[in-house]
This record gives sequence, structure tokens and C-alpha cells, in this order.
Amino acid sequence: MVGIGVIGYGYWGPNLVRNFSELEGARVAAVCDRDAGRLERAARRFPGVRTTTDPADLIADPQVDAVVVATPVASHFELAHAALCAGKHVLVEKPMASSADECRRLIDEAHRRDLVLMVDHTFLYTGAVDRIREMIAAGELGDVYYYDSVRVNLGLFQRDVNVIWDLAVHDLAILDGILPRRPRAVQAVGIRHVEGQQIDMAYLTLAFDGPLLAHLHMNWLAPVKIRQTLIGGSRRMIVYDDLDAEQKVRVYDKGIEMLDRESEDGRSVYKMLAYRRTGDMWAPKLRPTEALEVEARHFLACVAGREKPLTDGASGLRVVRILEAATASMETGNGWVELPS
Amino acid sequence: MVGIGVIGYGYWGPNLVRNFSELEGARVAAVCDRDAGRLERAARRFPGVRTTTDPADLIADPQVDAVVVATPVASHFELAHAALCAGKHVLVEKPMASSADECRRLIDEAHRRDLVLMVDHTFLYTGAVDRIREMIAAGELGDVYYYDSVRVNLGLFQRDVNVIWDLAVHDLAILDGILPRRPRAVQAVGIRHVEGQQIDMAYLTLAFDGPLLAHLHMNWLAPVKIRQTLIGGSRRMIVYDDLDAEQKVRVYDKGIEMLDRESEDGRSVYKMLAYRRTGDMWAPKLRPTEALEVEARHFLACVAGREKPLTDGASGLRVVRILEAATASMETGNGWVELPS
Amino acid sequence: MVGIGVIGYGYWGPNLVRNFSELEGARVAAVCDRDAGRLERAARRFPGVRTTTDPADLIADPQVDAVVVATPVASHFELAHAALCAGKHVLVEKPMASSADECRRLIDEAHRRDLVLMVDHTFLYTGAVDRIREMIAAGELGDVYYYDSVRVNLGLFQRDVNVIWDLAVHDLAILDGILPRRPRAVQAVGIRHVEGQQIDMAYLTLAFDGPLLAHLHMNWLAPVKIRQTLIGGSRRMIVYDDLDAEQKVRVYDKGIEMLDRESEDGRSVYKMLAYRRTGDMWAPKLRPTEALEVEARHFLACVAGREKPLTDGASGLRVVRILEAATASMETGNGWVELPS
Amino acid sequence: MVGIGVIGYGYWGPNLVRNFSELEGARVAAVCDRDAGRLERAARRFPGVRTTTDPADLIADPQVDAVVVATPVASHFELAHAALCAGKHVLVEKPMASSADECRRLIDEAHRRDLVLMVDHTFLYTGAVDRIREMIAAGELGDVYYYDSVRVNLGLFQRDVNVIWDLAVHDLAILDGILPRRPRAVQAVGIRHVEGQQIDMAYLTLAFDGPLLAHLHMNWLAPVKIRQTLIGGSRRMIVYDDLDAEQKVRVYDKGIEMLDRESEDGRSVYKMLAYRRTGDMWAPKLRPTEALEVEARHFLACVAGREKPLTDGASGLRVVRILEAATASMETGNGWVELPS
Repeated sequence: MVGIGVIGYGYWGPNLVRNFSELEGARVAAVCDRDAGRLERAARRFPGVRTTTDPADLIADPQVDAVVVATPVASHFELAHAALCAGKHVLVEKPMASSADECRRLIDEAHRRDLVLMVDHTFLYTGAVDRIREMIAAGELGDVYYYDSVRVNLGLFQRDVNVIWDLAVHDLAILDGILPRRPRAVQAVGIRHVEGQQIDMAYLTLAFDGPLLAHLHMNWLAPVKIRQTLIGGSRRMIVYDDLDAEQKVRVYDKGIEMLDRESEDGRSVYKMLAYRRTGDMWAPKLRPTEALEVEARHFLACVAGREKPLTDGASGLRVVRILEAATASMETGNGWVELPS
Repeated sequence: MVGIGVIGYGYWGPNLVRNFSELEGARVAAVCDRDAGRLERAARRFPGVRTTTDPADLIADPQVDAVVVATPVASHFELAHAALCAGKHVLVEKPMASSADECRRLIDEAHRRDLVLMVDHTFLYTGAVDRIREMIAAGELGDVYYYDSVRVNLGLFQRDVNVIWDLAVHDLAILDGILPRRPRAVQAVGIRHVEGQQIDMAYLTLAFDGPLLAHLHMNWLAPVKIRQTLIGGSRRMIVYDDLDAEQKVRVYDKGIEMLDRESEDGRSVYKMLAYRRTGDMWAPKLRPTEALEVEARHFLACVAGREKPLTDGASGLRVVRILEAATASMETGNGWVELPS
Repeated sequence: MVGIGVIGYGYWGPNLVRNFSELEGARVAAVCDRDAGRLERAARRFPGVRTTTDPADLIADPQVDAVVVATPVASHFELAHAALCAGKHVLVEKPMASSADECRRLIDEAHRRDLVLMVDHTFLYTGAVDRIREMIAAGELGDVYYYDSVRVNLGLFQRDVNVIWDLAVHDLAILDGILPRRPRAVQAVGIRHVEGQQIDMAYLTLAFDGPLLAHLHMNWLAPVKIRQTLIGGSRRMIVYDDLDAEQKVRVYDKGIEMLDRESEDGRSVYKMLAYRRTGDMWAPKLRPTEALEVEARHFLACVAGREKPLTDGASGLRVVRILEAATASMETGNGWVELPS
Repeated sequence: MVGIGVIGYGYWGPNLVRNFSELEGARVAAVCDRDAGRLERAARRFPGVRTTTDPADLIADPQVDAVVVATPVASHFELAHAALCAGKHVLVEKPMASSADECRRLIDEAHRRDLVLMVDHTFLYTGAVDRIREMIAAGELGDVYYYDSVRVNLGLFQRDVNVIWDLAVHDLAILDGILPRRPRAVQAVGIRHVEGQQIDMAYLTLAFDGPLLAHLHMNWLAPVKIRQTLIGGSRRMIVYDDLDAEQKVRVYDKGIEMLDRESEDGRSVYKMLAYRRTGDMWAPKLRPTEALEVEARHFLACVAGREKPLTDGASGLRVVRILEAATASMETGNGWVELPS
């Protein structure tokens, strides 16, 4: 039985507590939040759980074997670091930390102490992204041509992070999980419509070696909620719409093919014309299990030493590196920023 | 009765011939195309019309008062110029010409001879764009925050122009028609997936003075056809979906507002927090007339001296300037290219 | 503080317990279910609540002032009756009981003892149906022409009731709440595709005095989930789609109007031709509160004597009468069955 | 070369003329309409074609080998009969004639003279219906459980026929073409909302031997256009949406299956519970050719004796028989009307 301590009971914390509560092999021992009202709600909803406003108290609790950090990003490093230093395994919300440097220090600390350090890149545990990853890995799309994502809505403005850190993090985590290649440069353009607030809409582009492009549109000021991703490949193409209850993942047997035409002098046959090829579309049945349940179960297996984290510290670091570089590109207006390989 | 000569009977030419044929006050006198098969189809479909494979022949025809140029862009300048020099009014397909320089020379020629020179920016004549322009002009959106357009499909690759010249031209013409401000810089990123072919997907960003951004996604390699534009304003927002038969234009009474909160020391009241405001959505009834009919009628009125072209040579030039600059940005990879004010 | 006892902790029970738990002025004192596993889940989730497998025990509990009956329909009468006889107020799941006769006996008992008897016709408490009722009451639709509902999905087959008792009950409750008129006859056609199981698809038609028709399609064997209702009126029309997150209620300013044309002899003007009239569409903003919260609050206000039940025993009786008559029509194949006025 | 004469140049006539004009092996020799304005439009559009206001004139024309009747239904019999008597093949619009008796007389006449008599049940020639028919014929759906169609819009009221004759005719023709079984009885309910006009909305139900039901909803007073058909089968299910450009036919690998559970005494295994089975969905690529082109080509092949009409006089008769019986059911209010087997 793994004792779980959850720090942060705001928007996502209750989902974490609920999922670990309902899992065999885990027990939520303590919940921490600075806000008394939230703690009260936690106590009412999960009566057996100890509550505290002091993170140090939770981390020191001998009932707590693993700490889940679900606070604003600014405190991720400090809390995760303290937990690791106290010998506790850690599952930390995305983005992993405020800087690549912080991420590296957490990875080192976990490595030194042989503790599990996992990042809550939730989308990687959905049935939809899991299916897409399988298809790409199996070569069903052929060469991946592009990943284009629109992730917009009318959102509450975040105070501490811009729209890229809030929304792009999801697509960057997905890209990190499904693509065999890593981006070599990033650029971003953004704009602030409300004075004194964070940048509320942005476009982020990732360049790779070879003819592959990823592009993300993030927007807190859109009249409608859109979560739509197009993934183009040389053999097949995907439309992934996270809001479509019936057809989250649609696979199109479509593409462009070269038409071989004999040249006029009749001596050679060569490629002459691209033309489109269209075939069936299908929507595969997806694993219906809640992503967070799959992830919590995986985290327990990692703590037990039976599995390796799919979304480990290294993936968290890669995502934060891009967020840092994109923010730099956006603020300087200087275009492409190279990423370490 | 205005005699019309149409050069180019490929994809769009038949629509032009049909519309001018059915209009009172116009008569299609001649149709020209280099392809004999196409001319034969024109003759079968519109039996009273003279056909010729020689543009000079059509331009010289005394029955022809106005020439419509519907050929590939490379020949726009030469044909339009010859027509103007022969004293004929001109309606030319978009993009207006291959370069800003060519556009300027056409404008000068038309000006010198006091002839009508109009560009077929068809979308400006649709009920949807017309309604959007009215709303923006009347201040119903408040300050315009952004224009974001996705114009993608699985298309036949163009041989002579890249995806920007093929698809972005529509949005650039719309922007030119509906916004009171002109962009000050453009940047574009594109990619070529099929060797030896044109760039098939691209993202184009336009910067303006003030917090306004326009962004276009063009793609010939998308599995589905999407024509969706989000237009954000400080008071209202629009979703314009050209493929939605029932709700082409949806207007959302939504936005972000500042919450006035008293500060902690109780001495001053100031803006503290953005929050979202949501209200009704409505889809206004749109003028159902075919855009090309409205445009053809307008062209005749311009020829008769009763109206001034809504989509004149100057607008065609502004669009081509952006296409040129965007292509330069895309090919050099150097980011922002300034636009003349 | 009203003490609530909930009998039945299956599909809907947990929602009832959660809503009454979170409401000021109520306290869930006890939960009863025959299934030990379910009771355990209730105890884990709501630790302060007493659990029991014996309904009589719950009903006799002095902490319980009001009993919520959320069991299969066969036991509604017995449990609600026992609760009323013990002097407890009652909120009973829909359909109210197995027969009109049972409904009448419950109404009488509640009346005799001056207790609140309310039926959980949940849809009446949604923002969508509330808005539709307001519009009809205000005459915004003009004369109501028809109500056409499609309520289909791939469902788990019910063992104790056919598809009409399972699905039509929702629309019959909505109709009872939004229309000023009562139906005068019903007919239904249904079919059983799986031997030994309940009728799994059915069509139900309601006749009214005057040119108004209501028609319901219920289906447990549909490949997709559809919840779509068309409501036609002489002035406006509504499409109510309960699965559309953005536009649950769409109002169309459309209709048919008579064209007044002068007759040929020029002596009289009279109606000659119906033609269609089309205008704007809009989707009003709806109250976002969870229906069950609104309903639970209303129930407490009724218990306190401050309000009268919107969905009282009489409405529950009217709905069950139609279910009985429709089942009779369906089984005999004899068509229309008159309803008491 | 088959000479075609088209009588009736209203809504559908121009499509017929255009398709036969563009087909090799056919020549439109003459067009007839009582309305001079329409004839003028025909002459302008198809200059080589002879026009006349007198049907007898067209029928007697020696250039005319086959007559296409595209007039209102009241005149179908008279015109088609005259054409057959003059030795001309006939393609007649749906519904075939005003009564089953008229249909039989046309069939007899064509049989006696060994002429082709075909009914324009256009939907049978679409890629979508063709694919559905193939799937049913190949047993891919298993046992067909139901056919449920919604065919509604805001329509111009027909003067001479009610909504069943106008809209249900499409579904009855489709059913006739795709199902191996014939209905044994029909009932219909309809309503007239505008005094002095035809019945504008109706529901029609068809009973078959065995657990199969067909149900049609027709409505001229709906705020939105819907063309949606659900076809349920024991193995697979179909959603056919004629307005969906991307996914006209969706096939669902879904259904209900019996769960074999051991009984409590452990002595026997028997079917206990229906449960739902869900799998992939796919949208097969459909033949894109315009239905009327396929049909016109087929008609020419029938005239040439190479093929037998898919939509022959007998199918036209079966459809009209149901329309007659349904109208009788609707007007008398007496429910089921038996159909001849």
C-alpha cells in the first residue's frame, strides 16, 4: 500500500485525490493546501484524509511514500525538490517546473536517490493519444508530414503564466510522446490584448530535420472551444478532435501520390504530377478508461519498480525547454530559437 | 449593352461566362482559351458566343468593351495590359499579377486611359463577408483583436504558384476589405513535402500597429476541407465558417472584462482581474445572392461610371505586395518583412 | 435543517445524495440500498451518512424528514406510500409509479397528510427547458405546431420496463411542463428485436385538440446517441439538442406566411399561397446551474412551505397515464387510445 | 444515337436535359413546357434543341425515340401513356403516377409494346444508396432491424400533393431498392397547419413480416433541413446523412449481444442479458458520379436492350401503392392499411 500525499487542492487536485483514492494499492494519506476553504472541501469529500496547510508537514509525514505536486508552476521545483530530499517519490503537474535548470536539478536529485520522478502529462494516458502513438510507431501514417493543433477557448486568464505555458504544454507533451524525432528550433508570436495581463494568444512553430513542421495555436480569447489537431502523413492522415464524443480520432486513407507519366520523347518514365488519392475514413474504438486512472496506476507500478515512467523527468525537461525558448522568441520578436539536441 | 470578352475557360472561367450571360446590360461576345477542348465545351454550353484561341484576337474584337482575365497568374499582366492599351475595361482574376511592380503598371495604365480596372476578390461580394464588414464598420465588435483563418483541404497541387498565392490570397483580400487598418509587417513559414513541387503548407502572420494580429493557415495536404475564421473583438466575436450552410456567420456576445476590485488598503479602486463574459450567440440572415452575380453587376455599374470598384487595382496591389513579402519571408527564413505604409 | 433519506443508490442515487449534501439547509441523514457493495461505496464517499439495507428502517429514522425514492419503478408506490404514511415528505423518481392508480393513491395520501409529494422530472429544471417554457408562455413561438423528439442511443436494455417507460418519460414530462394544452389521445408502435427482452424501439404520437402533434422516437438500438427536439410554431421554431454543448437551444425566426395576392378579376384580395419566411437564428445563453441542484433547492423550499412543486404528483400522474395508454396501444396494435381530460 | 424528348422544364427538367445532353449516345431533340418563359430559358441554354408548348407535338416528333416526363404527377399517366402508344420508351418522374391503377396500365402498355418504362427513383443511383444496398445484400448488417428516416425542411408547399407524396416517395423508393422484403401494412398520421393547404407534416410507419419496422418523418415546416436515416442491423448499423459532404454513410460495428451467464444453481448455461457491443466506425469512400448521370446512362443501356431497368414500372407501382394506402390511413385516421403481397 503506497501512501500518497497531494499538495494543492485547486482545479486539478481533487481529480488526483479521487483517482488515487479509488485505486487498489494506494491510500491518500494527506492533502495540503494553503487555502482553508479548499481544505475544508477536501475534508468533507474525503473524510479519512488528514489535511494540513503546511507542505513541509505533509512531506515529513511517515504515512506519505509519494508526493503529488499540483500547485501553480512557480512552486513546483521547491516542493518536488523537498519531497525528493525527504526520500519521497514524486508526481508533478505539468509544466514540470519554471525553467529547464530547475527540471535538471529535479532529475539529478531523483536519480541520485533512485526515486521515481514522473510528470503529469495527462494526454499521453488518454485512449486517443495512445492510439495515435501506436499508429505512428507502426508506420501506419508513413512519414509524418505535420502536426497542426488548435487549442483555443474563452478562458480565465492565468496570472502567473502566459497562454503558451498554459495551453501549448499539452501539445508539446503529446508531440514528445508520439513523434520519434525531436524539434531542432522553435519560434513563437504572441499578443497581449488586456493591459497588465499575460499574453493571451500565441502561435508556436517547431522545426525538425526534414520536411516536418509542428504548429500550435493557443488562445484564451476565442468565442468557441476548439481542440482540433491535424496530423498529416505520407500514407494516412488523422483528425484528432478531443471534444468529439463519437469520433475523437478519425483516420483518413488519403494522400498525394505522384503520377508516373511517360515523357514526351518516350525514352524515360519519371514522376510528373502530384494528384490526390482518397479512400475510406474510420474512427477506431478507443480505450475508454479515464486517463488519470491509467496514469495513477502506472505511477504506482513505477514506484513498485515494475515499470519505467512513460512521462519521466526527461520528457518534462524537454517540454519546459521548448516553453522557455518559445517565450524568448515571442518576447524578443527574433524568430527561430535553436533547441539543444 | 456592355460586350464582355473572357480569356481563360478553365476552372473559374465558366462561372464568369455564365454570370455575365445571365445579366441584363451585358453580353458575352467572345471566349478565348488555348485549349481546343475547353473552347468546344464553351461553344456547346454558350452557342451564341464567338470562340478563339488567340487573346489578341479577342482583345481586338470591336464587340468587346471589357475583358475578363481568368488565366493562370503568370499571364495576368500581359493580357490585362494589352486589354487596357486597346482601351478595354478589365476585370482580372486574383492574385492581380505576379508582382507588385506589374500591379502598379496596370494601375497606371488604367488611370492614364480612365478605364475601369477591377480585381476579382470574390469573397468581398459574398453575403457573409459583406455582413462582417458592416459589423466591423459599425463598431459592433469593438476593437478588433485578431483574425485567424484556417483554409485547408486535400488539393490538386498548383504548378505555377505556392500554397500562399493559391489560398492566402482569399484571406488577404478579405482582410483588405474589412479592416480599417493595414498590416505593417508579414512573416511566413512553409514546407514542401513533395520534391519538385510547390510549397504545400504554410503559416502566414501579419503584424499591425497596436494589439491586432492576423494569422492564416494554408494547406493542400489536409485530410478534410476546413474554411474557418475566428475574428475576435473587445465587444463581440465572430466565427465565420464558409462550409456551414446554416450558420456561415455566428456572432458571440462574449468577451473578457476587467473586474473592478477594491485594493487591500481600501484607498483606491482599480482594475484587478480579467474575467469572461458570455451571452447569446446569433447567426444573422445573409444575402443569398451568388457573389459572382453581385460582383458582375458591380463591374457593369463601374464601367457605366455609376460606381467605384470596391476591389480596385489598389486593393489588388496591396494583396500582391503581401504575397511577395510572405514568399520572401518563407524562402529566406528570416522572419518579419516590413510592408510599405 | 431538513434531514434527507435516500432509498436506492444505483445509477441516479449518488447524484441525489451529492446534491442534497452540498445544499445549505439539508443534511443527508441516511442512505438505503439492498446491495451491500453499493452501500459500501456510499459510506466511503459520504462517511457521515448512516447506511442501511432496510427501507423501513430509513423511513422510521427520526433524523429523516423527507424521503427520496430512487429505486426501480416497481417499488416506487410501496416505498413512497410508506414514507407518506410515516409523515415524511417525498421526492420520487420518474416515472412516478407503475400505474395511474398507484399515482392517484399517492396524491391522495400526500393531500390527506398535507405533505409534499414531488416527482423528479429533472429536465424541467434544466436551463434549456426552462428557457423554452418561458418562450412558449410569452407567445414568442406563436401557435405551437408540433413537438418532435428523437431520443435514441445504444443502451443497456432495461429488464423491468420497455423503452417507452425508460425514454419517453422524459419528453412526456417536458411536454407536460411547457405546453398549455393536454393531449387527448395517444398511439404507439413498437418492436422487440431480442427475444425475451423488452420492446426496444418505439414511436409514440400524441393528438391534441387543434393542429398540434407531438411525436417521439425512442430507441435502445441506435448506433449513435441523439437527443434532438424540433418545436415548430407559427412565428418561430426551436431546435433543442441536449448534446450540443455550445447551442443547446437554437431559435429560428422562420415560418410560413400567406402571400396576399390580388385575384385575377381585380375585385378582391385574398390569401393565395404559402411561402417561407427566413430570418436570423440565435442561441440564447442558458442558466448553467446543474438541474438537480435547482430541483433539490426547490424541493427544500416546498418542504418549507415557501413554494409549490413545479413537478407535483398531478404531473407525475398525467405522465404515467400516457405511458399506460401508449403501452396498451403498442401491445394491442389498435391505434389511438383516448386520454382522460 | 437515342433521341430524347423532355416534357416539363421546371425544377428537375433542366437537370435531365443537361445530363442527357452531355452523354455520348444520346441527343436531346426536343423540350416541351407550357410556360413560354421556361421554354425561352431552355432555348438560351441549349440552343440546338427544338422547343414546343405542345406535348403531342414532342411525342410525335420522329427525332424523339424516348420521352422523359418531368411534369407534375397529375399528368404523368396521360403523357407517359401517349408516349408509349406512340412507340416511345419512357422515363417518368417519381411518383410514377397518381394511382396504382394508372401505374398498372402503364406497365401493361409498355409490356405489350416491348418498350422500356423506367421511373426516376434518383436516390437508387447515388453512390451512398448503392453502397448501402451492396452491404445489405452481402449480409454485412446481419438481419435488418429497422429503417428510420427524417426528411424535413422549410419547404415551399406543394399545391397538388401532400407532404407524403412529395417527400416520402424518396424513402419508399430507397426501401424498395435496398430491402429484400416487402412491407405488409402501412399507417400514417399527418396534420395540416395552414388552412386550405396540403398536409404539411406526417409520420409514416411500415410493418413487415418479422421484427422489422420502417418509419419516416416528413415535414415542410421544419426550421432546419435534415436528411438523416438510421438503419439498424443485428451485426452492424448505418447512419446515412445525405447532407454530410464528408461522411454520407457511416457504418458502426455496434450492436447488442446476449451475455451467456451460468445460472445460480450451476446446472445450466443460458442467455441472460443483452449488453452492448461497440467497435470501430468507418465511412466508406463512395462513387462520386452524379446520380442522374448514372441513371441516364442506365436508361440508354436499357433502351439499347443491354440492361434491365433497376427502377422499373413494377417498383414505381409498389411505391405508389404505399403512397395511396398511407394517404388513406392518414385521412381516415383508421391506422394500419394492408398492402397487397
